[in-house]
Amino acid sequence: MSDTVKILLNESDIPESWYNIAAELPEPLQPVLHPGTGQPIGPDDLAPLFPMALIGQEVSAEPTIEIPEEVRDVYRMWRPTPLYRARRLERALDTPARIYYKYEGTSPAGSHKPNTAVAQAYYNKAEGITKLTTETGAGQWGSALAFAGALFGLEVDVYMVKVSFQQKPYRRALMESYGARCVASPSDETEVGRRILAETPDSTGSLGIAISEAVEVAGGRDDTKYSLGSVLNHVLLHQTVVGQEAVKQMEMAGDYPDVIVACTGGGSNFAGLVFPFLGEKLRGGRDVRVVATEPTNCPTLTKGKFAYDFGDTGHLTPLVKMHTLGSTFVPPGFHAGGLRYHGMAPIVSHLKDLGIIEAMAFTQSQCFASGVQFARTEGIIPAPEATHAIQGAVVEALKCKEEGTARNILFNLSGHGNFDMQAYTDYFAGDLADEPYDEAALAEALSTLPPVAAE
Amino acid sequence: MSDTVKILLNESDIPESWYNIAAELPEPLQPVLHPGTGQPIGPDDLAPLFPMALIGQEVSAEPTIEIPEEVRDVYRMWRPTPLYRARRLERALDTPARIYYKYEGTSPAGSHKPNTAVAQAYYNKAEGITKLTTETGAGQWGSALAFAGALFGLEVDVYMVKVSFQQKPYRRALMESYGARCVASPSDETEVGRRILAETPDSTGSLGIAISEAVEVAGGRDDTKYSLGSVLNHVLLHQTVVGQEAVKQMEMAGDYPDVIVACTGGGSNFAGLVFPFLGEKLRGGRDVRVVATEPTNCPTLTKGKFAYDFGDTGHLTPLVKMHTLGSTFVPPGFHAGGLRYHGMAPIVSHLKDLGIIEAMAFTQSQCFASGVQFARTEGIIPAPEATHAIQGAVVEALKCKEEGTARNILFNLSGHGNFDMQAYTDYFAGDLADEPYDEAALAEALSTLPPVAAE
Repeated sequence: MSDTVKILLNESDIPESWYNIAAELPEPLQPVLHPGTGQPIGPDDLAPLFPMALIGQEVSAEPTIEIPEEVRDVYRMWRPTPLYRARRLERALDTPARIYYKYEGTSPAGSHKPNTAVAQAYYNKAEGITKLTTETGAGQWGSALAFAGALFGLEVDVYMVKVSFQQKPYRRALMESYGARCVASPSDETEVGRRILAETPDSTGSLGIAISEAVEVAGGRDDTKYSLGSVLNHVLLHQTVVGQEAVKQMEMAGDYPDVIVACTGGGSNFAGLVFPFLGEKLRGGRDVRVVATEPTNCPTLTKGKFAYDFGDTGHLTPLVKMHTLGSTFVPPGFHAGGLRYHGMAPIVSHLKDLGIIEAMAFTQSQCFASGVQFARTEGIIPAPEATHAIQGAVVEALKCKEEGTARNILFNLSGHGNFDMQAYTDYFAGDLADEPYDEAALAEALSTLPPVAAE
Repeated sequence: MSDTVKILLNESDIPESWYNIAAELPEPLQPVLHPGTGQPIGPDDLAPLFPMALIGQEVSAEPTIEIPEEVRDVYRMWRPTPLYRARRLERALDTPARIYYKYEGTSPAGSHKPNTAVAQAYYNKAEGITKLTTETGAGQWGSALAFAGALFGLEVDVYMVKVSFQQKPYRRALMESYGARCVASPSDETEVGRRILAETPDSTGSLGIAISEAVEVAGGRDDTKYSLGSVLNHVLLHQTVVGQEAVKQMEMAGDYPDVIVACTGGGSNFAGLVFPFLGEKLRGGRDVRVVATEPTNCPTLTKGKFAYDFGDTGHLTPLVKMHTLGSTFVPPGFHAGGLRYHGMAPIVSHLKDLGIIEAMAFTQSQCFASGVQFARTEGIIPAPEATHAIQGAVVEALKCKEEGTARNILFNLSGHGNFDMQAYTDYFAGDLADEPYDEAALAEALSTLPPVAAE
């Protein structure tokens, strides 16, 4: 029997539409609120930051939204992505489980992020925008938008958290190779940046500050919009190409997943794989357990509160109902930078609140141990974020072994770790910190959520 | 018209045999000579270092050699690799040429090197070997052998040139993630290493020293063999899966290449793409121009001498007839570490000597300029080595523009640059050195080639 089971699709199998789970939820999402009035916001409130096409998708009630041919043409550069059965990992775990994984690291930027970056660049370009601003922490999102900007001829300014800018020069080089401008944040290019530098000249920055800088620049210029890599409905929507392909590939494999695992930071790779399967379940089709995995040190779904909160530390964004650790909560440093967000996508939070999905949290030591086992059996070096999905799949596979049952496990390998090797260096040197987050700080952050009339 | 043209094969199209061009050369290769006796060496001379199956392939006169199913099964992890038409690059160059490229960076280790690493690991395992030793400079080869060793359960010790070991910690982390042991060379693990450290305690190492260490360890143990990533006939043989796939893919595209370009260090990615096309030409089939591209600072094919020489600086290897800059020639530092070899594969050298292939040399500044243009149009960050192939293709495409002719250009994009971002950082900072090699040193190295009776 062949050890390598790779399930490939044809180019004609690239989905022709995105799947909008918001249209099929058993209870509707809570509205997004204006922080000043406490009233639901409308399209006009978002227009300075996003093109109308994306605002339309953000609030759409249609179950499917057609993918423009120009976007599908770029998807063709790396899509459809492969789905593998992890036979070598199964053997190493000595499990009766069948483990499958969808691999999104084949995109030029190395993760699932280009699925939405390309769409966002396209719609901005179509509405006459010439420049996009965004923030990046670990750098996966900034790299993806830089790539998309190069293809559509858009300028891209990436405000990169200063400490990451300094620690990850190769992420910056990647963005610059795609022609983007990468700015250490806080910078002297914005009011908010100058104010922070005046108060704290040696500030190492934060995602909250970087968001504020990117938003300020985009809000002040007609030719410039802002772009976000996760959390928002339209971003999750664009990622559903992942799961739609996986549905077909699992059919070709002749197996349906009993459990699906994906890691969650803002929720986009999770949504991408999971929503098309959940849609079938919500329509009364086949059942499936769905598990979101997150770091114990940023336990948004497992320890957070489902409440209205700001999306950023600087409180410039609208209020959204989501699982949150409080916008002032600062998790300890760990390598899965893409999972260090205090909030969670409203749709993912809503599904968790309704009991439709589960969540598990793991330490980074647990995740890297499984990530290294995966690399040595399946050959791919996973991104630190993706090791959380692997660890979830391993836990489920070992449960199968204990129970002597052969379940089908599917997980999302959302990106490769080629730009994250410092994490592996630290792991092998025994330097991976697993110090827990500060319980008192979390309690404090959770106690200061904004009061919202609508609640 | 679609901008993305990606030509994919099915798994069943993975070649079932390797193509051995040595069997079809118009004149036979010159024999490999024993440095002491000046007489041709036999299989027994190589047996301490290589398994018999590979020695058989090294001297085979069969035009095809069957690929074991166990090797094809691992190839399936990433093969067949895609062939792209570079429409976006064509448009940026405003050329009537049709530019195609075969992309080998989709392998888990990120280059073409696993094509032979997997085969070598398989044959060693089949003959009861438990451990492989090798050397690595830039790290692409060491990473590939570490990957292959993990899959076949072989220990892998990589002697990495000390200066690279220190400058490229992420390459080391990659090899360790695959379970290999990475040793800074010169080390105190070998006689030659200890001798050099005693003489020069602060030696930064060289590929020649690292080869000597790996050979010494393998030669002294029955359970251990040595593995090489280029130059040798059997290594080039294994790479011909690349070109065999490309022949089919160009047929599917409805175009036959007028010119094929690949970069040359030891010759393996060049041979892999080119030999199956050249085989057709040698059998009286379609004609094709073939261009090897190399760094101006290590101009083996363009400035070297076709003569018997040692493969290593330490003069432990047999003598082979090849283009050489002299085994004592030390090229200036540049980022394409995989192209910094004083010699060239004997078969590639022979083809050049017969006038069947051409060669061009480029500075690294020229190559990086084309590499960045490629990244911004085609989306893939090329390895520094591969930028030499891109630059060759760009020169040919601009020639088409000047002449107003639409030729088909095919090149080998042998690997991605994800582990080489320091090179891009230096390029953007304007720090890429292009200081030429020392003419007097080259003349000196060429004047001290070993005297060989057989010549």
